[in-house]
Amino acid sequence: MKRKSFEHDTCPVARSLEVVGDVWSMLLVREAFAGKRRFSEFEHSLGIAKNILTVRLKKLVALGVLEQVEAGGHHEYVLTQKGRGLFLVLAALGQWECGEVGFKLVDVKKSRAVRLELRTDDGRTVGLDDVRLAFEK
Amino acid sequence: MKRKSFEHDTCPVARSLEVVGDVWSMLLVREAFAGKRRFSEFEHSLGIAKNILTVRLKKLVALGVLEQVEAGGHHEYVLTQKGRGLFLVLAALGQWECGEVGFKLVDVKKSRAVRLELRTDDGRTVGLDDVRLAFEK
Repeated sequence: MKRKSFEHDTCPVARSLEVVGDVWSMLLVREAFAGKRRFSEFEHSLGIAKNILTVRLKKLVALGVLEQVEAGGHHEYVLTQKGRGLFLVLAALGQWECGEVGFKLVDVKKSRAVRLELRTDDGRTVGLDDVRLAFEK
Repeated sequence: MKRKSFEHDTCPVARSLEVVGDVWSMLLVREAFAGKRRFSEFEHSLGIAKNILTVRLKKLVALGVLEQVEAGGHHEYVLTQKGRGLFLVLAALGQWECGEVGFKLVDVKKSRAVRLELRTDDGRTVGLDDVRLAFEK
């Protein structure tokens, strides 16, 4: 049974999940951020079956998350601008699961620890109890 | 075919996805943040089949994301502390899909717009090009 599609849902969270609410797709995005580009690299690092990998890569290209490029006679898959925007989602997922353990965001220039924070437009840090999601109509 | 489980994966992103890499589960979490607590409320707001809803609620309780509480002769489901930690994931998903359109985070105290940002421990804002995920061994 094909599950309900959320592609045209009015809620942005639902539309995002249509893209990333799939473990393999999101792990492929993680691997792309880690520098993997070739079919065989994704295959070996994830231990994913060829047919599943083929379908997922096709889906991510169709959704504009990955882009297929030619490189010396073979295909490579690189994150698009839209795909690079998923970094915050990956960071939030990692931060949620681990707290401070096992997972770090690092500033590439100065190697400082980096955290995901909620800030108001006038610069205050906001805690989880002081913020709500509002969906505009 | 049961898909590969990532519950014990060493990567925190993979373990998080085992929990939230499921569209219905994540939408249930969204509804819980929006104040829904009863089976019938989830059922009506999501248009989800009773049997699917039952399984998903059970899974979220088992994973420690929701907690079942008694309230006047019926069950209610409320977010645990762990579940409330998913707020950043929801926020990141919404921010990714929409940019500034259709979606807002709002400071409940002063109604200021709130954004998810990457900051170093010494307070600098970091752009997506200047940060990387590091998994500690």
